[in-house]
Amino acid sequence: MRFLHTADWHLGKKLHGFDLLAEQREICEQILKITLENNLDTIVIAGDLYDRSVPGEDAIALLNEVLMEYNLQNHIRILAISGNHDSAVRLGQGSQWFTATDYYLNTQLNQSFKPVLIDDTQFFLLPYFEPFQAREYFDDPDLHNIASAMKPVIDKMQAQFLPDKKHVLVAHFFAAGSTHVDSETTISVGGLDAVPTDMLEIFDYVALGHLHGKDALKHDTIRYSGSPLKFSASEANQQKGVFIVDTDPFSKTFVPLEPSRDLRRLSGAFSELIDPEFYGTQNRDDYLAIELTDSAIIPNAMTRLREVYPNIISLERVNNVDLESDVVLNSKHIDPVELFETYFNDATGKPLDKQQLEWAKDTLNQIKEDGI
Amino acid sequence: MRFLHTADWHLGKKLHGFDLLAEQREICEQILKITLENNLDTIVIAGDLYDRSVPGEDAIALLNEVLMEYNLQNHIRILAISGNHDSAVRLGQGSQWFTATDYYLNTQLNQSFKPVLIDDTQFFLLPYFEPFQAREYFDDPDLHNIASAMKPVIDKMQAQFLPDKKHVLVAHFFAAGSTHVDSETTISVGGLDAVPTDMLEIFDYVALGHLHGKDALKHDTIRYSGSPLKFSASEANQQKGVFIVDTDPFSKTFVPLEPSRDLRRLSGAFSELIDPEFYGTQNRDDYLAIELTDSAIIPNAMTRLREVYPNIISLERVNNVDLESDVVLNSKHIDPVELFETYFNDATGKPLDKQQLEWAKDTLNQIKEDGI
Repeated sequence: MRFLHTADWHLGKKLHGFDLLAEQREICEQILKITLENNLDTIVIAGDLYDRSVPGEDAIALLNEVLMEYNLQNHIRILAISGNHDSAVRLGQGSQWFTATDYYLNTQLNQSFKPVLIDDTQFFLLPYFEPFQAREYFDDPDLHNIASAMKPVIDKMQAQFLPDKKHVLVAHFFAAGSTHVDSETTISVGGLDAVPTDMLEIFDYVALGHLHGKDALKHDTIRYSGSPLKFSASEANQQKGVFIVDTDPFSKTFVPLEPSRDLRRLSGAFSELIDPEFYGTQNRDDYLAIELTDSAIIPNAMTRLREVYPNIISLERVNNVDLESDVVLNSKHIDPVELFETYFNDATGKPLDKQQLEWAKDTLNQIKEDGI
Repeated sequence: MRFLHTADWHLGKKLHGFDLLAEQREICEQILKITLENNLDTIVIAGDLYDRSVPGEDAIALLNEVLMEYNLQNHIRILAISGNHDSAVRLGQGSQWFTATDYYLNTQLNQSFKPVLIDDTQFFLLPYFEPFQAREYFDDPDLHNIASAMKPVIDKMQAQFLPDKKHVLVAHFFAAGSTHVDSETTISVGGLDAVPTDMLEIFDYVALGHLHGKDALKHDTIRYSGSPLKFSASEANQQKGVFIVDTDPFSKTFVPLEPSRDLRRLSGAFSELIDPEFYGTQNRDDYLAIELTDSAIIPNAMTRLREVYPNIISLERVNNVDLESDVVLNSKHIDPVELFETYFNDATGKPLDKQQLEWAKDTLNQIKEDGI
């Protein structure tokens, strides 16, 4: 049994105000292409299909179109679960009708105990759940965290293992040993909120979602696929992609995904970054987390950088700014009009014209009179 | 071909703060019961399945459960459209998978031109649409209202009429000749926003949704089913129900629905309404729009009435209140503490006790000092 493992699509996510829907559509097409080229008939999606519990209509329309293309047009089997970013009820709307075409979408804990048998493999699709749901389901008041809740969950799954089959768990949680990344803010690192990996080793493979790096957990058979796109500057150095897994004999292969617009860090002095000699070598359209190495204040730096790099997602000063060198802060005894003239000239590269000077004077006088 | 015609479920609607989900679930069960008892295999739902474009999770879960019970468990065919209260995208999520089990849910204008053929009848399922969608679809900038947009819509449908079949339109709009009710606030009455009924007479039956009374349009073959429950005091006198329609030979029968909790107007003097002799004859649990006939001011009337009638949705004074009789308004020169004592006594039937009097004095002094 061979399948493709992906997770954390986060459809509808905004990246510092930039809409990612076009890139998300494109990367879903790449996943389909990889599936077809490798003659796979099954895609596993380990949660966080949407970025928000109440996704926008455009994100809903995109997921619907993508899964129609996968499942209804290309007859690819889908094995999916809801993640912590998804609303189980909203994502799960209509899922009872989907199974007729081999599209299995589990959003409730109790569904995970009915494995999906495909060829030589039993798939247990465990959606993201809260400890209180396990307490209710097992009628056990002591299940206070996911680690303790996973014990009866796994026991119940194991009781249904067919001995001559392989067993795959699809889940969305924080497994111990993994590293914390910025774009996941709802988890705490390690401790009782994490599921120990040794507990998961009864499965032949565990297809995880939640953490966005494929190497967040370095385990041969328990693995995060990572997200298909970079969703924060902390993911800038991650190679995104999907795993192709074969259950017998076990093998997994990482296949990279290539977004048309990368997300990366760019570091340098301001004068260098806006130098055509330099930026001529750059893919200026990328999403950029810029680190300025200057110690001098650069007036209007973001606006001027955006003229060269339209998709800046963050701007950071990595060296302390040398306040002594700054004309503005050294000039507290200068007349306010004069101070503004200097600032305007610095920021725009042009002096105030006569009309602008009038406006500046009037406004500054007004402020003085009003005592603001 | 026989089918049941219903519309305007408005799942998730709140009635002046009262949650109707339990009643809505119950009335959906009654609709199924009527369907099964009459050996029908098709239910037509003419829009406004939800009350809001972004329904709550409980409403989504209810619709999913109801339609699973109808369609997946009882194998009832569903022919449904989105109404103006529904979000086409949100309601339509997954609808492409539903058709495999004869559940047809149209949410886009272009879908309405692919009729569903069942036995001797072609069903044209036309979702609620805005004129701009018709302008785009027909590439005709002159379609400025629903009446003008309906001309090419109907022409395009008629071009697909099979002459040996009956033709049923399912739609959600305001058809001319109908009366306006309070619970629909987004439509304007008559004029260009209404679709003339003569335009619709090419169909053997038009199953409408939008207006909540079954008699909003008194036409033999063009009919609103009305909502299954009363959703405002203006609907208090309407008999709610569903139509059972036979296309050949044409007949339609109204079958009443009986909610466990009615919504009705209750009119009388305050003293009468709170008299056990009177309210002993009343179903006090009903949703009540109360009209007080008194002309005297009744202190704390709503609280005192709610002790008898827990589900009051509105309280109205139908006679002018005789302000001259009111002690409070005639007493502007009384000391504030004394005035409050009188009011408290009127409102609660008890004098202020010593501690309460202290609090009142302290508070009134504080207000005086603060100059509020």
